[in-house]
Amino acid sequence: MGWNRNSITAKLDIKYPVFQAPMAGGMTTPQLISEVSNCGGLGNMGAGYMSPDEIRESIKQIRKLTDRPFGVNLFVPDSEASADTEDISSMGEVLERYSSELGMAGKQALPDKDYAVLYKKQLDVLMEERVPACSFTFGIPDSAIISELKKQGTLIFGTATNVNEAVEWEEAGADIIVVQGSEAGGHRGTFHKEESGMIGSMVLIPQAADAVSCPVAAAGGIMDARGIAAAMILGAEGVQLGTAFLTCRESGAHRLYKRALLNAGNDQTAVTKAFSGKPARGIRNRFMEEMKGRQVLPYPLQNDMTAPIRKHAAKLERTEFMSLWAGQGVGMAEEVTVKELMTRLVKGTELLLDK
Amino acid sequence: MGWNRNSITAKLDIKYPVFQAPMAGGMTTPQLISEVSNCGGLGNMGAGYMSPDEIRESIKQIRKLTDRPFGVNLFVPDSEASADTEDISSMGEVLERYSSELGMAGKQALPDKDYAVLYKKQLDVLMEERVPACSFTFGIPDSAIISELKKQGTLIFGTATNVNEAVEWEEAGADIIVVQGSEAGGHRGTFHKEESGMIGSMVLIPQAADAVSCPVAAAGGIMDARGIAAAMILGAEGVQLGTAFLTCRESGAHRLYKRALLNAGNDQTAVTKAFSGKPARGIRNRFMEEMKGRQVLPYPLQNDMTAPIRKHAAKLERTEFMSLWAGQGVGMAEEVTVKELMTRLVKGTELLLDK
Repeated sequence: MGWNRNSITAKLDIKYPVFQAPMAGGMTTPQLISEVSNCGGLGNMGAGYMSPDEIRESIKQIRKLTDRPFGVNLFVPDSEASADTEDISSMGEVLERYSSELGMAGKQALPDKDYAVLYKKQLDVLMEERVPACSFTFGIPDSAIISELKKQGTLIFGTATNVNEAVEWEEAGADIIVVQGSEAGGHRGTFHKEESGMIGSMVLIPQAADAVSCPVAAAGGIMDARGIAAAMILGAEGVQLGTAFLTCRESGAHRLYKRALLNAGNDQTAVTKAFSGKPARGIRNRFMEEMKGRQVLPYPLQNDMTAPIRKHAAKLERTEFMSLWAGQGVGMAEEVTVKELMTRLVKGTELLLDK
Repeated sequence: MGWNRNSITAKLDIKYPVFQAPMAGGMTTPQLISEVSNCGGLGNMGAGYMSPDEIRESIKQIRKLTDRPFGVNLFVPDSEASADTEDISSMGEVLERYSSELGMAGKQALPDKDYAVLYKKQLDVLMEERVPACSFTFGIPDSAIISELKKQGTLIFGTATNVNEAVEWEEAGADIIVVQGSEAGGHRGTFHKEESGMIGSMVLIPQAADAVSCPVAAAGGIMDARGIAAAMILGAEGVQLGTAFLTCRESGAHRLYKRALLNAGNDQTAVTKAFSGKPARGIRNRFMEEMKGRQVLPYPLQNDMTAPIRKHAAKLERTEFMSLWAGQGVGMAEEVTVKELMTRLVKGTELLLDK
């Protein structure tokens, strides 16, 4: 039995247990997702911030480009997120310095999004579209949602950042648990106490694999065949790569974001709450440095408040105000096509594990 | 060529490239060190805080118990460490609450240790004793020291926590570079900017191995054969285990410290500067929690000021004030003898890599 004949490839009917991470914010284009799936892996849509129509349209595009399975990721909303008007206006003042530096007209109003409603509507689309796999971040959905999705044949992926979260996901009925090591780029999926969720892949993988009986996929710091082989030896049956796919030609990452990824070294990322209110790893830049130590609003309030600045900064090509999410393996990122990357990963892993 | 026939085993003339980490503070007894070396690995003395006489005596004991190679670790002193009298007295007030809770009589005076002098005398002993290997933490010694040690046949191990530190160590003439992933227990060896030194083993190992041509040994999160095999696949030629050896019968860890290690889970450690002024990972306890966010004195001042409290707390068996250094793999720690542990590690790794 090779590294690519296991319960993950069997459950998903895919050739290689290699997932492209569902990175929210426009990175996971239908081209990226479909190409990963066409190459035998599993492409995943980072749909957390997407409208129901955008999700539906993207699924349509993906299905035009591939008949292979793919996944969609949603953010489980936190009903508790709220902040004092005072804190909101004080954060508004802090951020106004940046919006005025960027020449943005007028005061930025706090958008009044209802994330619980959005989540419900996103789920409706996934049900209608009968997506092959659905992964969740920031929490575990109600059992009714999980059983409804499973009933129609959708596989459920949970995101866990420590052993206890993994055990909770297994009890909730996850088919596969993605364990996210502290090396990972972007948002921490932690839904237990924040300080419990920064565990390195080297110890998170074996401890999670020992604790649950459903298959574990390793995310965080996996950039090449060595990382895949190491993760499998540690007890994972699959792997999920984010940063490695971000610099692929098919990803939707901004040109300057890609350039920043290709130039960054192993010690240039940090975890910050400045952009969204939740801890997330990215390449250190001016916004992160200047916001360091400052009390921020809870997610998603902080995220909504910084969104206009980030968007405008991208337009103006001012990377110092953009969220440049990246994992600690960013020093190994390369400019490639999905096909080139997948071929290297598969061949290299075979060489290391199937000798 | 098996996993245990490489340039590390050849350089050191040992059977298995498995190092017991040099943990300072009385953990690395001559019994622990010699037994690891007798089992074919490399025992290492954590001599950073030891007096020249204690080091000489310990080396004598080790040589009675084994004729195999062993190593000694020193802390490279930072000539810059100083603090305002005001900051010192304000930290004194903070700590007095704890010393009075522990019933310690009188005000604790700040000991006036000269660490540069201590380091020089420690080095003299290592020269006289012609120790087989010498590792350094917190910096790189002067080139004169390195060449003198090498001239008499002592192998030099450097400690690096990111790729740039590893490259600097190679340029300084290290024979072996121990790369310390963020999972590791105890002090971070970081000597570049503090924020540059918290990189997970999954990405630190391959990136360091790619960047230097001397052999790399991986430390941080390695607890069993899976961890060893993963580290070797990622590019390491050797491994260094700390936490796994702490719960061995031969280690000098306090009975209650061992119990805390055996009971701790994967998400119960944190990195703190509260005990010593330098970041170090340990099991979260009351002292760490209460000191969180507080400005502490630079190392070694903070270390000197908290030392009496930690010592007295150990006497009174009050673990809430002891430094319970532990890596993130602590959930996998087991109560074993060195022989049992080494046998498991070796057999398991053979099974995984030499099939």
